[in-house]
Amino acid sequence: MNVRMIYKSNEDFSTAGKLIYTDLKKSGKSDFDFDLRRKDNTPFKAHVIITSPHQENPLESTIVTIVDISQREEAQKEKMKREKLQGVLEMAGAICHEINQPLQTILGYSTLLEDNEAISPEDLQKIKKQAIRIGDITRRLSNITRYKTLEYPGDTRIIDIWGSGAD
Amino acid sequence: MNVRMIYKSNEDFSTAGKLIYTDLKKSGKSDFDFDLRRKDNTPFKAHVIITSPHQENPLESTIVTIVDISQREEAQKEKMKREKLQGVLEMAGAICHEINQPLQTILGYSTLLEDNEAISPEDLQKIKKQAIRIGDITRRLSNITRYKTLEYPGDTRIIDIWGSGAD
Repeated sequence: MNVRMIYKSNEDFSTAGKLIYTDLKKSGKSDFDFDLRRKDNTPFKAHVIITSPHQENPLESTIVTIVDISQREEAQKEKMKREKLQGVLEMAGAICHEINQPLQTILGYSTLLEDNEAISPEDLQKIKKQAIRIGDITRRLSNITRYKTLEYPGDTRIIDIWGSGAD
Repeated sequence: MNVRMIYKSNEDFSTAGKLIYTDLKKSGKSDFDFDLRRKDNTPFKAHVIITSPHQENPLESTIVTIVDISQREEAQKEKMKREKLQGVLEMAGAICHEINQPLQTILGYSTLLEDNEAISPEDLQKIKKQAIRIGDITRRLSNITRYKTLEYPGDTRIIDIWGSGAD
């Protein structure tokens, strides 16, 4: 295989060559990640390590080791996903913990006030209805095991609580 | 350097030797992560790649490449931290979005009811106080930029909302 084949252009080949040569002169080693293709033309992420026993004149001979790191990359992606889910769940847990007690108090006192005939039941119902809604949200939170996100103003994203699921 | 020096015991040396030999016979390559030490005795995480041009009899000669991956591991850890923070923030954003409106309704109607002299102001204050507390929580959430966690019953952790900070 002509080594130029793995570069997209002669410029890339020349730039990479210079960087590798400089590394080899300096430390006897050059390594980097690179997108390569298998014989069946499927792409894979490779970690390429070039060493030379001739540090003074590395062009004399080099040993090139190519490690297929696509599985490692996949594993990393999975790990990142789990890590983010962990953040989502820990925050959901915190909210349930913080909000449930004040919410119970609101619900309790608004139920208590229902006995008072001087109060319009509609006004009280509006309070209760919203407190129940907040309760629905926290219940939903405590059942999330996987999540979806939504775009949100300010170039950010938030968890889609109603679209996220439970197992 | 005697190759046994990098193993903790003769058993480790023998087990590793068998695994590497099997890999080399099978694919001409064996690679794994390993805790090594630099000359100055500081530990580092290494990716070790062993290849042999003699697949039939790998013991004839092997090429061992050792890559210091401690920087890569550090970068991965940082990335994981950012990913988890992202999950925390996206959940915090969702909560603020979901809860603020019902909360405003509760606060609005409980303020309205204050004009009704038939209601004990204490009961109403209890509702308002808790609604304000929930409001404090959501305000706190919207300012979080870094977080701490707390142990929580059920062998889990939750975000420490009051201990987490803003920049």
